[in-house]
Amino acid sequence: MEVYLDNSATTRPYDEVIEYMNEINKYMYGNPSSLHTKGIEAEKLIKKARETISESLGVSSKEVYFTSGGTESINLAIRGYLEANPRLGNHIVTTKIEHPATLEVCKYLEEKGYKVDYIGVDEKGVVRLKELEEKINDKTALISVMMVNNETGSIQPVDEIAAIRNARNRDAVMHVDAVQAYGKMQVLPYKQGIDMLSVSSHKIHGPKGTGALYVNRKLRIKPIIFGGGQESSLRSGTENVPGICGFGLAVEKTFEKIEENRLKVEKLRSLLCDMLKKEGFEEYKINSPDNGSPYILNISFPNVKAEVLLHHLEEKKIFVSTGSACSSRKRKLSHVLEAMSLRTCDIEGAVRFSFSSFNTEEDIIYTVDALKEILPKIRIRHGGKR
Amino acid sequence: MEVYLDNSATTRPYDEVIEYMNEINKYMYGNPSSLHTKGIEAEKLIKKARETISESLGVSSKEVYFTSGGTESINLAIRGYLEANPRLGNHIVTTKIEHPATLEVCKYLEEKGYKVDYIGVDEKGVVRLKELEEKINDKTALISVMMVNNETGSIQPVDEIAAIRNARNRDAVMHVDAVQAYGKMQVLPYKQGIDMLSVSSHKIHGPKGTGALYVNRKLRIKPIIFGGGQESSLRSGTENVPGICGFGLAVEKTFEKIEENRLKVEKLRSLLCDMLKKEGFEEYKINSPDNGSPYILNISFPNVKAEVLLHHLEEKKIFVSTGSACSSRKRKLSHVLEAMSLRTCDIEGAVRFSFSSFNTEEDIIYTVDALKEILPKIRIRHGGKR
Repeated sequence: MEVYLDNSATTRPYDEVIEYMNEINKYMYGNPSSLHTKGIEAEKLIKKARETISESLGVSSKEVYFTSGGTESINLAIRGYLEANPRLGNHIVTTKIEHPATLEVCKYLEEKGYKVDYIGVDEKGVVRLKELEEKINDKTALISVMMVNNETGSIQPVDEIAAIRNARNRDAVMHVDAVQAYGKMQVLPYKQGIDMLSVSSHKIHGPKGTGALYVNRKLRIKPIIFGGGQESSLRSGTENVPGICGFGLAVEKTFEKIEENRLKVEKLRSLLCDMLKKEGFEEYKINSPDNGSPYILNISFPNVKAEVLLHHLEEKKIFVSTGSACSSRKRKLSHVLEAMSLRTCDIEGAVRFSFSSFNTEEDIIYTVDALKEILPKIRIRHGGKR
Repeated sequence: MEVYLDNSATTRPYDEVIEYMNEINKYMYGNPSSLHTKGIEAEKLIKKARETISESLGVSSKEVYFTSGGTESINLAIRGYLEANPRLGNHIVTTKIEHPATLEVCKYLEEKGYKVDYIGVDEKGVVRLKELEEKINDKTALISVMMVNNETGSIQPVDEIAAIRNARNRDAVMHVDAVQAYGKMQVLPYKQGIDMLSVSSHKIHGPKGTGALYVNRKLRIKPIIFGGGQESSLRSGTENVPGICGFGLAVEKTFEKIEENRLKVEKLRSLLCDMLKKEGFEEYKINSPDNGSPYILNISFPNVKAEVLLHHLEEKKIFVSTGSACSSRKRKLSHVLEAMSLRTCDIEGAVRFSFSSFNTEEDIIYTVDALKEILPKIRIRHGGKR
């Protein structure tokens, strides 16, 4: 038995997606820029994927650009917009719990003279709206927030942030990192007042190496990769046709069952929580808010080193994460849990279980059984009789 | 019968590459940043691909970075180096026949205050070394040249350019766009004095959406995509594991037979040239130099519109290109053939046949037969009796 509970890091592609990419690689390998039918065929395949994705977001297909992934989308949105609109201010508002893609771009922009405010979050990992409101000013050119936090699943109040933006500075554009939200909850840029939005393919059973960026047609943004003029000159380079089409099919399949999947995953998450409670686990603390995304459950086991727990679980072929995959290799304390003011021992013992519709109840039962066996063995006891 | 002679635009992936990517997508879908075995397994796969590619170039695996393709590699090399080394001068030397990836980055940098010299080429499409020598000065920070031109196959004298650089300004670094050379001829950065080198996967029967950049370990370059710190922080974003590994296998398979493939393709190119001569074709002009890459043959058929010829050929399922795929959609005159001072009628009638080891003698014979039938029908006769 293999239990993959690291779906926020990446997912297994749908079999149909793998099969479709196969077909394209074998028979429809033309370069979309080529004038002949093999090129036109490839171009049509991309067009179809673009329509699938734009429909899923309720936007025009002219507003969707393919990139190599979520990180590139975020970089392109933030840098591309600011560079194209230098006169609209040099102030950026973001949060302390963003993905490194956002945080590192902001750090880079700080070196270039931009001023960045990183808004804090409450103990549930939700951005402090009051603080956000105070920080937005006349010079704020861009606000960038994530919709669902990748470590805890906390959902950010994007609609309220848009309303605050409207009240404080209508010219400030809003970019949303929807990498962990897309295909899992409602993401509707027009309705939600979102000007740019980044999504990724491999988080929803699509292939790695593909993502998309929605840019409202009224905005002007500058490319970060120049060349042959693909993607309306916003992103040059021969299109990754199989990747883009695999992404399109993954979106189709995901959105067909978006509600069904959510209910399934909600049940799994509840089952895990209920079993932990019932089985009388000595100590643990659920860091994910109740009203967060059902796809993510972050739990602290105090006096346990998360990495040790992770390795014991993997011996039983259960795969989880400590912190987010993107920063877990750095062995730093999670910046997200720190921003939520967790105690150090709770941060050190934090494990992320992240689900997908591929998971089953058996997965959860097997995992709880494993935890029951492992935790007493690895818990650090302080002192003798204390 | 289908005859694909547009291999410089893109190639059909090897069946083994498709199969290998399949396996990875199905069973080894972990995120290389994850700490568990599924992540480590993915990381090892990437390591192997990196070693294959670094060995093929005779460089250290620490000097090879994966990107989303040739265009991104070129952008990263040029912008990344200049941005990391602002004090080394604001002058760039490149050529008039570069791929748009290079030309468009240079255009962008000109807006930012850099001075760019675009060196001309002779009638064979080879850069004028005398002119290049004159242009390199104390302020030259970077020289960027392609190894094989994508439209004509002309080979640029990279070794001599490196020698001139050494004589004129040892601090100027040299970036080589080896997209059309890699896997087809000797490309050895250490030996050839190349400091940075860009390669692409989909030109050698690997998947689209993957490329690599060699950067000499002595150089410091800045990322253009920031985030989770993948690729030693030079290129963030979850690695496209199947793409990278497919690229690695394509390199392995290509280099195993690099000499055999070259001989095969040389024969095909010669066969095409010989048949055109023997069959008594009325008018044509071979634009590719005799000593160019055997993978590309650019021919002008004066008084023929290349696009009309292309469409007649595609009716017979023969796929060729007018100009390069990357710019053919723009319906501008080829900047490469213009730089070679071809007559307008020769540029308008220029078709690129580009080969791969998948092509056969039958392909060529079928193509010549088709040309014999099509050309007289579509040739524009000027005046009545003239």
